[in-house]
Amino acid sequence: MTTLALTGGRVLRPDATVIRADVLIDRDRGEILEIGPDLGGDAVETLDASDSLVTPGFVNGHCHVAMSLLRGYADDKPLDAWLREDIWPAEGELTAEDVRVGAELGLLEMIKSGTTAFADMYFHVPEIAAAVEEAGLRARLGHGVVTVAKDEEGAHEDMETSLEVAEEYDGAADGRISTAFMPHSLTTVGAEYLEEYVPKARELGVPIHYHANETEDEVTPIVEEEGVRPLAYAAEKGMLEAEDFVAHGVHVDESEIGLLAEAGTGVIHCPASNMKLASGMAPVQRMREAGVTVGLGTDGAASNNDLSMLDEARDAAMLGKLAADDAAAVPAEAVAELLTAGSADALGLESGRLEEGAPADLAVLDLEKAHLTPRHDLVSHLAYAAAAADVRHTICDGQVLMRDREVLTLEESAVRERALEAAEDLAARVNPTE
Amino acid sequence: MTTLALTGGRVLRPDATVIRADVLIDRDRGEILEIGPDLGGDAVETLDASDSLVTPGFVNGHCHVAMSLLRGYADDKPLDAWLREDIWPAEGELTAEDVRVGAELGLLEMIKSGTTAFADMYFHVPEIAAAVEEAGLRARLGHGVVTVAKDEEGAHEDMETSLEVAEEYDGAADGRISTAFMPHSLTTVGAEYLEEYVPKARELGVPIHYHANETEDEVTPIVEEEGVRPLAYAAEKGMLEAEDFVAHGVHVDESEIGLLAEAGTGVIHCPASNMKLASGMAPVQRMREAGVTVGLGTDGAASNNDLSMLDEARDAAMLGKLAADDAAAVPAEAVAELLTAGSADALGLESGRLEEGAPADLAVLDLEKAHLTPRHDLVSHLAYAAAAADVRHTICDGQVLMRDREVLTLEESAVRERALEAAEDLAARVNPTE
Ligand SMILES: [Zn+2]
Ligand SMILES: [Zn+2]
Repeated sequence: MTTLALTGGRVLRPDATVIRADVLIDRDRGEILEIGPDLGGDAVETLDASDSLVTPGFVNGHCHVAMSLLRGYADDKPLDAWLREDIWPAEGELTAEDVRVGAELGLLEMIKSGTTAFADMYFHVPEIAAAVEEAGLRARLGHGVVTVAKDEEGAHEDMETSLEVAEEYDGAADGRISTAFMPHSLTTVGAEYLEEYVPKARELGVPIHYHANETEDEVTPIVEEEGVRPLAYAAEKGMLEAEDFVAHGVHVDESEIGLLAEAGTGVIHCPASNMKLASGMAPVQRMREAGVTVGLGTDGAASNNDLSMLDEARDAAMLGKLAADDAAAVPAEAVAELLTAGSADALGLESGRLEEGAPADLAVLDLEKAHLTPRHDLVSHLAYAAAAADVRHTICDGQVLMRDREVLTLEESAVRERALEAAEDLAARVNPTE
Repeated sequence: MTTLALTGGRVLRPDATVIRADVLIDRDRGEILEIGPDLGGDAVETLDASDSLVTPGFVNGHCHVAMSLLRGYADDKPLDAWLREDIWPAEGELTAEDVRVGAELGLLEMIKSGTTAFADMYFHVPEIAAAVEEAGLRARLGHGVVTVAKDEEGAHEDMETSLEVAEEYDGAADGRISTAFMPHSLTTVGAEYLEEYVPKARELGVPIHYHANETEDEVTPIVEEEGVRPLAYAAEKGMLEAEDFVAHGVHVDESEIGLLAEAGTGVIHCPASNMKLASGMAPVQRMREAGVTVGLGTDGAASNNDLSMLDEARDAAMLGKLAADDAAAVPAEAVAELLTAGSADALGLESGRLEEGAPADLAVLDLEKAHLTPRHDLVSHLAYAAAAADVRHTICDGQVLMRDREVLTLEESAVRERALEAAEDLAARVNPTE
């Protein structure tokens, strides 16, 4: 058995307490063997975690990782105009190779910021899966489908692709990759397609992931045309099961919060994206009180503009208080959960908690920083003060992906260079006169 | 003449454009001599800025820097309970030495995050001034006065201290320190004291800085007792002049925005603090449209919980959009201004713009990072994606305070050690049974 011990650290437990302990990992099985004192001597290899906080690897519950190539491409516009005028035209020019390069860039950023698992909706999924396999993260991947701008044949083809991808890649990369069926949203996919393909996804046994209730503009047409709130409509279409998870959930009313809690459907809160696109404030405190499983996601880098889950954590704490009009809402302990177990549970992953038998997915944060001094409360630091660059080591499935800020699975400067070039070429193709 | 050239960088100009240029600095006078191509050969010393963004040093318009010692001490409570139950009892135990240690910790964090100037309201100001002199930053300092919990004699003494400090330290540290008269807020200082001491501050010729319109609870009593909005009351008391600046300005109505614009009084927006304490959303876009000078501040680390102005910049962009219900509000270019010239103008400092003859106060950000790749728009990166740890070099008044992440004016590990110890001692004094 190849073992690895993280020694001398302070370990964040599932109950949001922090204890001084070592963590012993079985690298072959990718599992945590033991958490306790003085485990360094039992291990084949050790990794220093002194003056550091050992947390579960962060779980980014909703992303479009290849959009890292569009970081800063267009900002400061409302969702609809931003998509139609900038993002969709640029995405129309993205080649499979661009998606690969963009995914590698995003994965590099995830590793550097302590993220070990994520859910992703995009196209050219085989390229993303290959990048995930190389980078060493855990992911739930899917092909996103929009039918509204397509002819019937194109829409059916896209739906089939989403099913095929979900079937083909489930269990890939030694089980690190799982999949989902991913209709883009309740307004961008026609009801007839949902009725035809949701049962097929159920036959495959994969979860369904989609954007829901992100803006008021998405809610109104469903209420007007269908006579019910969007998540009641989703339930009618069979898309609100315990294994499913939706992104955003900003404009949900009490009846929808009830539906989510009852069904066990997870909600991935994306506070940065919701603020940047002025979509609104999700009622995170209220959803948690009602028993909804809430996780956290960055959405794509183009509406964020980074993939740091620690930024997202701070945003969730901040925005959650404003939304509840209560400074006691979404406290640091809740944020620690959103960032780890909340997202993992929503995505149906086993990670997100440091305990014996759990997947060895960990982030180790260096506490020897001015902005993390003094140390009255390390959970407060995790929620409010820690930043991506504080992550020393990132470990996924027992494999060290980053050691002392050096990424071991991707060649950092080469990934950045390729992304710089691909982004320049892309911009030139989209705006050839510039 | 001792000259220093920053070579090979991309320089943020006052109009929010970015050009490739070197920056030549006169270190003796602490001024920018020239911005243009190939200036390295003219300089005695050079500092590499290749693959980097050269910006004005960030100006933190409202802080209580010594509160860094209380980072994470108490979180997730509304302003009033947080102050009364946690912060004020802890501050009651702070010694002059604690304030010195806390100030050094905060200044260390500022230098590491590219901040070169700040306004500060606290007590034991001589300790803070000494720390500023040592650390090399620029500051406008003042002694904050609360009269409501004091007897008459104590209140007068405190007011006198605020005037004395303002007089004594104006021009200290070779002119890097300036001062202000700092009554804490319009509700925590009695009207009779404002009437007596504001004219005395005017005689001294120093600006007045105070918290205003932070929460609804501060607005209501003034409206009820005085019959006017808080900023009309401030104007009546002679505290709304062009050199004055207020912190927060969350709950300001159109009449107050008009008063601010007409008077030329600056507003320091503190988005993180306003979110964390659920105070509300300042109408930043509206204030800027009306011609109000708006800057940016972190407030104290206990309500933030860091002093990174880049976090604050991102928060300002995000919250500004939500407050305006418009994703086009507070765009990246506006954020760049808030972060630099906006704050500097509000504080009456000459810094905040990179141009010939301006103070040599600069931050240099390393762009060779995954989260700053690709480079469609560097101003977008500054507003949305850059983080404290991206700052390579920090320069103030022509002096290099940090070179390649190494702080040259403070001994980083010693400052952190002293802060850890002082914070532990403080916590033990406040809660002796723990
Ligand atoms: Zn999305
Ligand atoms: Zn304050």
